[in-house]
Amino acid sequence: MPESIVVGLDIGGTSTRAAVFSLSGERLGTGRAGGGNPTSHGAEQAAAQLRAALDAALVGVAPERARAGVIGLAGLGRLLADPAGRAAFDAAWLAAGLRCPYEIHGDALIAYASGSADPAGTVLIAGTGAIAAQVRDLTLDRISDGHGWLLGDVGSGFWLGRAAVRRALADLDCQRELAPVSVRVLTELLGSAKVEPRHRDTVDRLVQTVTRRPPLELAALAPLVVAAYADGDEAAREILTEAAGHLAGSVARIRPAGDTSPVVLGGGLLTGDTPLAGAVRTALARRWPDAPLRTAGDGAAAAAWLAARSLPEVTDPAVLHDRLLATSSI
Amino acid sequence: MPESIVVGLDIGGTSTRAAVFSLSGERLGTGRAGGGNPTSHGAEQAAAQLRAALDAALVGVAPERARAGVIGLAGLGRLLADPAGRAAFDAAWLAAGLRCPYEIHGDALIAYASGSADPAGTVLIAGTGAIAAQVRDLTLDRISDGHGWLLGDVGSGFWLGRAAVRRALADLDCQRELAPVSVRVLTELLGSAKVEPRHRDTVDRLVQTVTRRPPLELAALAPLVVAAYADGDEAAREILTEAAGHLAGSVARIRPAGDTSPVVLGGGLLTGDTPLAGAVRTALARRWPDAPLRTAGDGAAAAAWLAARSLPEVTDPAVLHDRLLATSSI
Repeated sequence: MPESIVVGLDIGGTSTRAAVFSLSGERLGTGRAGGGNPTSHGAEQAAAQLRAALDAALVGVAPERARAGVIGLAGLGRLLADPAGRAAFDAAWLAAGLRCPYEIHGDALIAYASGSADPAGTVLIAGTGAIAAQVRDLTLDRISDGHGWLLGDVGSGFWLGRAAVRRALADLDCQRELAPVSVRVLTELLGSAKVEPRHRDTVDRLVQTVTRRPPLELAALAPLVVAAYADGDEAAREILTEAAGHLAGSVARIRPAGDTSPVVLGGGLLTGDTPLAGAVRTALARRWPDAPLRTAGDGAAAAAWLAARSLPEVTDPAVLHDRLLATSSI
Repeated sequence: MPESIVVGLDIGGTSTRAAVFSLSGERLGTGRAGGGNPTSHGAEQAAAQLRAALDAALVGVAPERARAGVIGLAGLGRLLADPAGRAAFDAAWLAAGLRCPYEIHGDALIAYASGSADPAGTVLIAGTGAIAAQVRDLTLDRISDGHGWLLGDVGSGFWLGRAAVRRALADLDCQRELAPVSVRVLTELLGSAKVEPRHRDTVDRLVQTVTRRPPLELAALAPLVVAAYADGDEAAREILTEAAGHLAGSVARIRPAGDTSPVVLGGGLLTGDTPLAGAVRTALARRWPDAPLRTAGDGAAAAAWLAARSLPEVTDPAVLHDRLLATSSI
C-alpha cells in the first residue's frame, strides 16, 4: 500500500496555491491557480481555481492516497453560510479524484500555522486590513480588530495610506516644508508635488482626488510610506512607528501580559523584511520580551500540516511542521 | 428720505434666515425659510428659499431703502462656479424688490462675524464636520482641516460618533465591562446592549450595521457621547477631551502662538453650553491664555453687519456690531 499523503490549499484573493506532501514530509506536488476568494469572486470561480490548483499539485500522484485535506481561505463565514458554495467545493474536490474528507479554516489560522506548530499563540496580520487573533488548540479563539477601514484596521495598509495623505494635508495646512512622504503622496495623486500659491487649492485637489475613489484604494499608498522611510524620512518613520504601536495594541487587547507563546506575523506588510515588520517586532518585544516572534510562511504547506497532524500515524506534529515548512517554496 | 437699511441672510442646510436692520441698529424684520444650501438642494431651490426668507423679513419695509446686502452660505465655491446658480440668486434678490448690490460669503466668515467685530481673529467650527480659519480684514485667510470625514474633520460630530463605536468595539474585543457610552451605542444601533456569549458575534453585527449605512450617519451618535458624559462616564470624557485636543490642534496649525485676537466658536457642537465647547475652551485657553473666546451667534444679523460696515455712514462698525448682535433673535 503506497504511503498516505495530505493535501493543503491556500485560497487568496490574488492566487490559489496547493501543496501535496507525504506523511514523512516529502513535497510531492505544488499547484498554483488564480485568485479564488469566494467573497470577491463567487464560490463557483473559487471552486474552479481550487480544482486547477489541485490538478497541478496532483500530477503524477495517485489522489486516492490522500488521507486528509485542509483548505484555508478568507471570507470563510460567507462560504459556510452558502450551501451552494460548499457544494461547489465538494464537487471540485471529488473531481480532482480526492476521496478523503477536508476541512476549511480561515486565513488567520492558516497564517498562524505557517509560522508555528505550537497549539497556542497569537497571530497578527497586516495587509490591506489588520486583525489579530489568539489561537488555542490550533483553532481561533479571541479576535481583535479586523473591524474594516471605517471603524478599525488600525496599522493596516489602508491606515498607512490614509496617514500619508493626512500628513500631506497637515503640511499644506501649516504651510510648512513638505515632508518627503508628503511629496510622494502629492506626486502620486496629483501628478506633481507643486503646491499652488494658494495652498488651499492644492488641499482641495488632494481631498477631491482621494474622496472620488473607493476608500480602500488608500492602501495602495502604503508603499510610499515604506519608500520614504527607506530614504530616511522622519515623517514616514513616525507613521510607521504609530502603525506598529496600533498593531501591538490590537494584540494587547487579547494576549495576556507575560504570555510566552509564539506570535506569528502575517500579511503583506509584516512578512518579509519591511520597516513596519521591524517596528512591530520592537513593539511586541517590549511588551512580551519572552515571546518567540515568527513570520508566516507557505500557507498551502501549513494547510497540509493542519490536515496531517490529526492522523494517528503522525506521532510528532512539530517535527513534521519543521519538514513541511522548511521544504516549502513560497 | 427714509433711513437706509441693510439686509443679511444665512443660508444653511436646514434653514434660511434673513434679517433687516436700520443703520442705527434697529431690527426691522426677520424671515425664515427652509434649507437652501445650494450644494445639497440645488441653486434653484436655494434661490426660492432666499426669496421666501427675504419676503418675510421685508414685510412693512420698503425694499428700495436697502443699501447693501450679504448672503452667507456653505458650498460657496460650487455656487460661484455655476453661472445659472448665481443668476437664480440675482433674480430672487430683484424679485424681492432689492436694488442694492449684495455679496456672498462662506459660512465660516459669517460664523466669525457673528461672534466678533474684530477684523482679525480665528473661527473654529464643529458640527457634522470641523474646520478652522484665520480671518484677516474680515475675509478668510488660512484654513485648517475641513478635509471631510475620510481624511479629517477631526473632533467633529462624525469623529465623535465613530470614536463612540470604536470604544464599544474595543470593550468587546477586550471582553471587559462595557463603558456607559458603549452601552448607549449598542442600544442605539443594535436595539439592545446585550452582548452575545461569543463577543465576536456582537462585534460583527455592530460593524455590519455601521458599514451598511452612509459613513456620515455616524455623526448622529455624537449626542450619545455628550449624554454619557453628562452621566459621569469616564470613557465619554476621554473621547470629548481627545476631540477638544484635535480641534485646538486644528487651530494651532494656522494661529500663531501668542496671538491675542479673538477666537469664535461655531457649529452645533460648540455653540451652547456643551461639554465639548467647555473642553475646547479649556484647551484653547491653555495655548492662547490672552485670547478672548467668543461664541457664534445670529448668522443673518452678522451678514447684515458685514453689509453695513462698508457703508460710509457707518463710522463705528464695532458699536453697530454690538447693537445688531445684541438685538438678535437666534
